Amino acid sequence: MSAPSPSDTPTPRTRPGGRTARNREQVLDAVRAELTENGYDALTVDTVAARAGVHRTTVYRRWRDVGGLIADLFAAARDIDWQPRDTGTLRGDLAALNHEIQDSLTEESSIAMALIAVSFRSEEAARALRRLWEDRYAQSEIVVDRAIQRGELPAETDARALLIAATAPLYHHVVLLRTTFDPELPDRAAASAALAAQSGAFTPQATAAL
Amino acid sequence: MSAPSPSDTPTPRTRPGGRTARNREQVLDAVRAELTENGYDALTVDTVAARAGVHRTTVYRRWRDVGGLIADLFAAARDIDWQPRDTGTLRGDLAALNHEIQDSLTEESSIAMALIAVSFRSEEAARALRRLWEDRYAQSEIVVDRAIQRGELPAETDARALLIAATAPLYHHVVLLRTTFDPELPDRAAASAALAAQSGAFTPQATAAL
Repeated sequence: MSAPSPSDTPTPRTRPGGRTARNREQVLDAVRAELTENGYDALTVDTVAARAGVHRTTVYRRWRDVGGLIADLFAAARDIDWQPRDTGTLRGDLAALNHEIQDSLTEESSIAMALIAVSFRSEEAARALRRLWEDRYAQSEIVVDRAIQRGELPAETDARALLIAATAPLYHHVVLLRTTFDPELPDRAAASAALAAQSGAFTPQATAAL
Repeated sequence: MSAPSPSDTPTPRTRPGGRTARNREQVLDAVRAELTENGYDALTVDTVAARAGVHRTTVYRRWRDVGGLIADLFAAARDIDWQPRDTGTLRGDLAALNHEIQDSLTEESSIAMALIAVSFRSEEAARALRRLWEDRYAQSEIVVDRAIQRGELPAETDARALLIAATAPLYHHVVLLRTTFDPELPDRAAASAALAAQSGAFTPQATAAL
């Protein structure tokens, strides 16, 4: 699963347990499999129910339609108790983030890529993806706080701007430019962003009007 | 029209003139209008022909199908004689690039956004978009060359890595994160990238293995 990126294994914080929870896991697993194998266009409540081995009326009752299934997939991803790694250095922490992002986007049958593709088809999915990313970036700000506390960064560093600068090249290369897989990109982007941040590139002074 | 981004007004370098060229302009204008108004799913050769006021057999003969129309749309964008602006400073040049990108992605009925969306639906469109971006980034490298010649940057600066770092936050915010329009983002991202580059963040030494 991944850093500021849609993620895959739903482990809800509050797990009611029992058949309802099991049904949800089976249904969401089936949605993921259908999305990555056959795409959004082929997604129907009936194929999901059949694949999950759950009665279709149960699926209709709880999720209503494809939009409801997709929304719950994002909700499950948001419920994951994700935290960025603590490697002891800003550069190491950013590299760890970037490796998680690259792995999630380039793995076979990437659910992250599938969810991004769906966000171009459904306004509801786009909103859900936006909320998920907002969570992940907010959770990642601790990486910058720690670096400031260690004296690695100016105290007035804009955490979000630094995190975007460190991670955006990954998304740009993999999702949009679709360049060849580059195993060194996560480290290189992290190193550049860390050095830039240490030079004060994400402080109000650096970006003040000319 | 836009910097390292799909662009809109096709002005082919070699313009044969006459009815063939006029037909192509009318047809590609109609494809753009259909794509931004009704989306890729609704795109058909017949609706394009009707909108362009061109006989449908002409459209079928020359473009064959929707894939042919989309491919020619990208070809027309690649034919534009685009050049990055020369403002006299690295920061100014990068800001000008970023403003072009932001404008093209956020304008009403953005053809750039429509082409990015199509690239998630069609492998052929994805390849065409990749080639277009490759052109634009290659054309933009002169911005870095000029900065090196002015003594603003270390000579061993990786031009592509710097250009990606400067522009990726724009795409990430607008296309993927879909954050609220931020008029200061182009300048801020340009300023951060320029300062980072001047600190040597895009040199082989900065990104060497730890």
